[in-house]
This record gives sequence, structure tokens and C-alpha cells, in this order.
Amino acid sequence: MSESKKLASASLESLYRIFTVPEAPDSTLGRIDQSISQNLAGFLQEHIVASERDLSDIEKDFADPQIPEQPTFVSDQIQFVLDKLVAQSVHISAPSFVGHMASALPYFMLPLSRIMMALNQNLVKVETSKAFTPMERQVVGMIHHLVYGRDKDFYTQWMHDRAHALGSFCSGGTIANLTALWAARNNVLAPTEGFAGLGQEGLVAGMQHYGYKGLAILVSERGHYSLGKAADILGIGRRSLIAIETDANNKIRTDLLAKKCDELAAANIKVMAIVGIAGASETGSIDPLDQMADIAQERGIHFHVDSAWGGPTLFSNTYRPLLKGIERADSVTLDAHKQLYVPMGAGICVFKEPSTLSSVEHHAEYIIRKGSKDLGSHTVEGSRPGMAILVHSGLHIIGRQGYELLIDQGISRARHFADMIRADKDFELISEPELNILTYRYVPQDIQTALESAPASLRTEVNEQLNLVTKRIQKTQRGLGRSFVSRTRLNPHHHNRNAVIVFRAVLANPLTTNQILQDMLAEQKEIAATPPIQALLKQVRNLFCGC
Amino acid sequence: MSESKKLASASLESLYRIFTVPEAPDSTLGRIDQSISQNLAGFLQEHIVASERDLSDIEKDFADPQIPEQPTFVSDQIQFVLDKLVAQSVHISAPSFVGHMASALPYFMLPLSRIMMALNQNLVKVETSKAFTPMERQVVGMIHHLVYGRDKDFYTQWMHDRAHALGSFCSGGTIANLTALWAARNNVLAPTEGFAGLGQEGLVAGMQHYGYKGLAILVSERGHYSLGKAADILGIGRRSLIAIETDANNKIRTDLLAKKCDELAAANIKVMAIVGIAGASETGSIDPLDQMADIAQERGIHFHVDSAWGGPTLFSNTYRPLLKGIERADSVTLDAHKQLYVPMGAGICVFKEPSTLSSVEHHAEYIIRKGSKDLGSHTVEGSRPGMAILVHSGLHIIGRQGYELLIDQGISRARHFADMIRADKDFELISEPELNILTYRYVPQDIQTALESAPASLRTEVNEQLNLVTKRIQKTQRGLGRSFVSRTRLNPHHHNRNAVIVFRAVLANPLTTNQILQDMLAEQKEIAATPPIQALLKQVRNLFCGC
Repeated sequence: MSESKKLASASLESLYRIFTVPEAPDSTLGRIDQSISQNLAGFLQEHIVASERDLSDIEKDFADPQIPEQPTFVSDQIQFVLDKLVAQSVHISAPSFVGHMASALPYFMLPLSRIMMALNQNLVKVETSKAFTPMERQVVGMIHHLVYGRDKDFYTQWMHDRAHALGSFCSGGTIANLTALWAARNNVLAPTEGFAGLGQEGLVAGMQHYGYKGLAILVSERGHYSLGKAADILGIGRRSLIAIETDANNKIRTDLLAKKCDELAAANIKVMAIVGIAGASETGSIDPLDQMADIAQERGIHFHVDSAWGGPTLFSNTYRPLLKGIERADSVTLDAHKQLYVPMGAGICVFKEPSTLSSVEHHAEYIIRKGSKDLGSHTVEGSRPGMAILVHSGLHIIGRQGYELLIDQGISRARHFADMIRADKDFELISEPELNILTYRYVPQDIQTALESAPASLRTEVNEQLNLVTKRIQKTQRGLGRSFVSRTRLNPHHHNRNAVIVFRAVLANPLTTNQILQDMLAEQKEIAATPPIQALLKQVRNLFCGC
Repeated sequence: MSESKKLASASLESLYRIFTVPEAPDSTLGRIDQSISQNLAGFLQEHIVASERDLSDIEKDFADPQIPEQPTFVSDQIQFVLDKLVAQSVHISAPSFVGHMASALPYFMLPLSRIMMALNQNLVKVETSKAFTPMERQVVGMIHHLVYGRDKDFYTQWMHDRAHALGSFCSGGTIANLTALWAARNNVLAPTEGFAGLGQEGLVAGMQHYGYKGLAILVSERGHYSLGKAADILGIGRRSLIAIETDANNKIRTDLLAKKCDELAAANIKVMAIVGIAGASETGSIDPLDQMADIAQERGIHFHVDSAWGGPTLFSNTYRPLLKGIERADSVTLDAHKQLYVPMGAGICVFKEPSTLSSVEHHAEYIIRKGSKDLGSHTVEGSRPGMAILVHSGLHIIGRQGYELLIDQGISRARHFADMIRADKDFELISEPELNILTYRYVPQDIQTALESAPASLRTEVNEQLNLVTKRIQKTQRGLGRSFVSRTRLNPHHHNRNAVIVFRAVLANPLTTNQILQDMLAEQKEIAATPPIQALLKQVRNLFCGC
């Protein structure tokens, strides 16, 4: 019985069976399903192979472009998935995986996901989502309230209003940022006497009508790469995304921002948005949002805050003040699959004013008809799953106080980790953890000392060589599979803005312990002691003595 | 024990527990989870309330914008989800739900989704997805092969190539169409001597450099609304999406298409893409793709085919010829969450040439670095879930022959349904099912006869009145909750292109039977016999006698 739903041959009868008969508990798939339900951590531990197999080797298992002619037994495919895919996937939720914005998930997310998948609602329209539509509107409203805290009447009036949306639920921060900038762009070249608006007439007509020489988006050099992509997609071009220099703490220099705004205005280039960052991807730093809001407001510029990472800091009474000014933003991006601890992919963009998103409103004949409450009239995407159920449940089950604990703990863990790094003279902390992200690198103490007093040109050379060391250690550690930090490239002020490759640690998994971090540093030192790294370090030392 | 993971108060200890302890089998959530595993259809049948509750009433359960301060018991939240959300969701997978592009799912999709959720891979980069990256590349390659059927060497060379992508996996057809048109637009205004390309310099600079007066996208009037949205987002404007008239069978008039191309060329407006439709959302019709390919090829225009719905027709040896010419398209959209029977949201866009997507390639310092195999360098989205595992498994477990059976059966079911409609003199078939979609309406025989010989102005008036009838019947039937057809508005040739509201039936659920369809028609006639509809019909009859 257990493999009875196999399609031994493609017959209608066996096809019906796979659409109607559930998996038998004793089938391969049934056993895996139970094993995940009962002991997720154990399942991952058991099935994900720790040590790295070369990607080009893995590719051999996924080389055939031919869709199989005959059906495969379910059990055979599942065995393949286990052996070739699960075994060679990444243990994202491991407490020692602190390299990217990932974490273990609250246990209830998995069975709730099954409810979501079982219902398979499509949130583009009420006809295929019913209660999921008001539920998602509430979730958007809750995030709006978290950010803007408008009064009860505001939400009573707008949250379920058929002609407006307080925000847009989407697959992730990239689409959220795109949504915000799309709305901002269309509002800058809005319909007016003799012009039907950019949405209708296009960018070229809009620029002519308004007489602008160009459009621009301003963000610090720490801006997420999705902004460049949005500038490309939206047709304004990547060069019109202007990177403003940051200070020593990776925060935008507001003096330079204001100056650039005025320069552009003088050149008749319209700034369509200023983007503030709350939790930069690489350093976790937060821009001075309140000052940025001043600059934007004085000039009538759309102010967007990308808090894909840092938004949930608003849950914390202790750290909320770090984001002061976010409540003045015209739009705010927040990722649910990051610090709301929801599975991949759920993002949200909220808008201060209910009218802002109207600039991108659209309709069709068979769905999202005018006057309907269909969510699809204000989204970049069309058909979408009901991921909002997971956010709704997270917000209720964990609550503000629960999320506050998670946020506070991550930040204090990162500070503790920074202390560990500082305490070890062979590591160099590159960026302090303003939130729960920090960057550092391995530099033996003697090299650190020598570097401090070295002339600029030598420093550049040394840093280039040290970059090879950092890169090599990071790759080796990743390959060993016990723990994982990512790497990126920064231009720190205290290194004359040299390009410096760093380890990047993100402390968002509540199961990460100080001991795990200590072990990770110890392993990095062990790797550093191996001949290939020692050889690289010898070359660094040679640079100093000129030998 | 069963509710022990509740957060009675927000404490770190109880938080750890929700990240580590799985749900107890005897907890509320555990019981639901098992019930879905063991009997999905029964679970949905039991929990989804059949009759419609008013949306404004449902909204009362989702009215609070305040994120709860204190944690809620898991069991309480789950009870809420069951009573307020599941109960009031739409029974998408019911065999009598034939109104939208939805279906029951193969049973293995749910436990496989759990594996996907448990692994929670992020496909933006190899570091967070490992084997999922080559797996997704293979899935894209398989769809590419289904469409283009290139030889083995082609896939050996390109499928896993680090600098190229044969396509882009995304959340759905809307993003797939956007991806295709983004690439097409950037290729039209590509980098050249003295111009760094539209991606860098923007649309305005590109138009100036190339000396075009405008850009345009051409598609039939049956084009999906996502194309208008893409025209807006991409900055060319909705007016530059030019709708070409269709013939009596809802296919693009290629004579008019060619003429429009030449008119635009003469006006120095560059056509950046011609879009062919394979399975129009409203009628299921397929454009003459081969002729369109000729027109595009002769003029060097990007030819995109939106086969979000109809693409899987390629599995069928019988019906594959309907899509002849698709293999000449430069890009093709196909939705996996439609006729590949995968849950919401999975779409794919494939490109004939490996170089086409290079026009939208992008990189960052901490991920999708140049030279990496990170999938994120060629996608609109950033972080993305591993939905490709579901497509990979569907293609293997069901196989080409299995999908062929599903496709063939849907088309023959639709033809049979068309026969039923024709056999009943009180229904009027509006569009024949070329694939598995058809449209019709309820018009009593005497009115049909009178309508045929009526003068044009009277016909328009009568059709307007009949539209009220169709709308009312559709809404009433939806409210009763036994079966569901959607409605849309067409301009049929045989009605002088009057706006005609029609029922729209999509026959993709293999569990839909002829009996269900018969019952659905019978119910529509019952509704039509009720006083409100009879009153409307009386007004129609009055129009004829002028009383």
C-alpha cells in the first residue's frame, strides 16, 4: 500500500489517485513528513551533510534537461531529494550559521505553512482568498501601526478601504523597495493638466512635461543592491542612483546629502526619493533618519526607509529610539522572512499616506475590478500565496514583548561577540554592532601594529594581501561545515578607505550561544595557523620589511 | 504538555522552547497537521464554510491594527485561524470551483513543501542554497528544453554556466513577464559606442542616444493585465502597450499587427517586444505564434510568448501543434502554480539565447559576486524560496506522459462542457474552448432569437441588460458556495463587439466531472428562475417590444 500511489505507468486512474489519496504514514514521504514534524533539528542534522561537496560535482546530479517521459515512483523521487538535494543543502537554521540573515524558525511556522499550502489561496483577488484578504490587510495595518502609530480612527477608515492600500505585501524586500520607488517615481511625474501621468505616458513624456533634465535617487554607499536594480527596472538608470558617502560609522553624511540635493536641484534634476537605511545588509548600521526626514521634507522629496533588516527593532523599547525618524518616512520596507522569523519569502512595504500607492493602482476585467477589495490592484506581483497568515500568527503568538526579547538578545549577543573579538589581539573589529551585525577580520597582532604606522601606499598593499587571507579563511571554514560567516568588502575610514574584505556575522538566531561564537573564532585561528594562510601572512610581513 | 510551548509570558526560556520543541501530536496544531496529512479533502470540507459571509462582516475579525503586547497561546491563535480564517477561505481545490486557474494538488506537494520550508533555503545565492542552485538551474533547463528542445551540447554548455542564465525562476507569471520585458527593453537600448546602456544611463538617455521617438510593446487585446503593469513599471507607459484587435476566435489579427509595426517604424517608434499569447486568461485562446514569429523576425523585434497558462500544452503530443512557433520566441513565460500543479507562487521565464538575460545582470559585494553561480544575478527578486523543488518533483513523479493526460483531459472536459452548453437552448456559448477555458452566458431561448434579428442599437441595449443578469447569477451562485464560475467582459464579434459579461470556466482540476458541470448549469437555471433574475429578464423582453 505504502507506494501504491506511484504512477507505474501514466494512467488516468493512477493520476486521480495522486490527486486524492494522501500519503501513507509508512511511505517514504510519510516517514519524512513525520520525522520533520517530530524532530526538525534532528532531521536536518541527520540529512544535511556537513562537509562541502564541490558545486561542479553536485551539478552532475542535475545535468539532464530532458523532462522524464515516464512517471517516476514517488518513493524514488523522494529518495533522490533526500540524497542529492537535502544532503547537499545548507543548514541555514544551525546556530553556528551566522553568516547571513537566516535563523531557526519557531516550530509553529511549519504546521501553519501546511495549512497555508493546503488552502492554496491566491491573494490577488477576494474570489480566491476571501478572509485572507482582510487578514493580509490587517497584517499590513499592524506593520503600518508599528512604524507610524497612527490613531484608531485612521485604521478604521483606511485599513479595509476598497480604493486604498496602506501598503503592499510581497515576496521580499527587493519587491518592497521596487514598489516604494515605483510609487515615488509615478508621484513625481503625476497626472496634471495636459499630462496623464508617467504610468500612462511614460518616463520620456513625463520628463518633457515637467521639464526635468533627469531623475535621481539618493542613498548612502551602504544601500542595498536591490535599489540599483530598481533604478534599472524603473528606467531611470543605475547612474541616477547616487551613492552618498558614509561617516566612520557607516551612516550617511547628511551634510553631503543636503548638498547633493541642492546641486541636483540647481541642475534641474529632480530627486524622486531619498532612501534611508535602518540596518544595512553589510554592517547593520542605521542612518540618521530624523535628519534625513528633515532634508527630504524641506525639499518635498519622497523619503523611503529600507528597514528590511532593522525594522523589527521597533519592537524593542530599548532600541526603538535608534530608528527615530522612521515614522516620518513616506514609505518603509520590512522583511518578514528576516527578523519576524517567517520562512522565505515575505516582505512588506508600508506607506505613511493611504494615497501614495494610488499612483500605481491598476485594474483588469476579470479580476481586480475597480471598486473591488482585491489586493492585486496595488501590488507589483499578480498571483501570490497567503504568507501573511504566518506573519499574523507570528505577531500574535510571539507578541510585541516576545519580539522585543529576540531583538534585544541579538543585539546584546553581537556586542558580546564584539568584545570577544576585541579581546583577541589577532582579530580586528572592523564595524561595531549597532544592531546585531558586525564585521571583523583576522590580522595577527604584529601586522596590526605595523599597519598602524605604515605609509598610505604600503597600507593599501598590505590590505590587498590581507584580503586574500580573509577570503581564504572564510572559504575554508565554510567548506569544513562546522560554522559559517559570510564575507563582504568595505572601505573603512580607519583604513584610509582601502577596500577591506571582512568577515560578516549576523546574530539573529536565538539558539546561537557565546560558546558557539568562541569556537568559531578558535576555528578561524586554527585555519590561520595552516601553511597556506601562513604563507600568505609571510608575504604580508615581507611587505613591511621590503624583502 | 500539549500546550506547553505557549508563551504564558514573554520569557527567554519559553521563547527558546518555541524555537526548539516541535509541536506535540496531541496539541491543537499537531492534530490539524495530522488531519491535513491524512485527509486533506476531508479537512477542507469540514472546515471551510460553504455559504458566503459578507466581506465587511469578516473584516470585523481583522480590524485591530495593534500588534498584541503579550504573547497569545499557540492553541488560541490556531483556533482563531481555524474559525476565522480557514472557515472563511475559498475552497480553491473543490472540483466544482471552476472559475479561476486553480485545482486540487497532487498529494505529494504538501509533504514536499514541508521539506522545502524546513530547509528554508534562500536561492538568491549558493551560500544559502547549495544544491538548490543547480536543481533550480536544471528545472529552468527542463522548461527551456520543453519549449526550445535544443540539443544536449547546448545544455551541457549553458545550463550551469556561471555567467549566463537560460531563464529566471520567480514568484509567478507577472514577474516572469516583467523579467522578459525588462531584458527586451535593455537589449533594445543596449550599450554601444558612447552609451553605457539603458540599465546604466536610463531610458531618457537611451532614447536620445538611439534617436527613437518612443518605445512600444504590441499584444492583442486579450493580453494579460501584467503587461500593462510592466509597461508602467519599466517606464515606457501604459499607452505604449498597444492592443491589436483580435479576430472572432480571440486571436491576434496578424495583418493588423504587421501594419502597426510598420506604422510605428515609420514614426520612429521602436517596438521593443511583440507579445504572443498561448492561453489567454479570459478565453484560453492561442495566438498564431508562427506568423507572429515571422513578423518579429523580419523586423528584428524581441518576440515574447506569455504561456503562463497554456505552456504545459507542450506536454501533449495531440495539442502541442497548437503552440507551433513558440520555439521561435526569444522569451517564454510559464506558470508552475497553474498547470504544473504546484502551490502558489512559482513562475518561470525562459530565454531562447543564453545571452539575452545578460542585459539585466547585476552584482553586489556580499552576495551574487561576479563569477559566482548565484542565481540572484539574473532575477527581479532578491531572496527567494526553493519552490523549484516542487517543480522538479512534479516533472519527475508525473512525467511528460502524466502531464499529457492532465492536459488532454482538461481540453476534452472543456469540449464536453461546451457541448452541454450548446445542447441547452437557454445558454449561449460565447467562446469555444481552444484549450480548457470557455465562456458562456445564460440567455433564454426567446431572447436569443429576438436578439439575432435586432438592430444594432437595440442589441447594445439588450446586452447591457443581459450583463446585469449574468453578473447577478454569478454572484448569487458564488454566494451559495456549491460551485463557482468567474465572470469577465468580452467584446465578441458576433455581438457587434458589444461589451458582453460572460461566465468563465477553467477546466483544469482533474477531479471535476461532467456531472458537476451539469449540476452547475442546473443551479444557474434555478437561480435564473428566481424573481430577481426574472424581473431583470422581463426588462430585457420589454426592450424588444418597446413597452
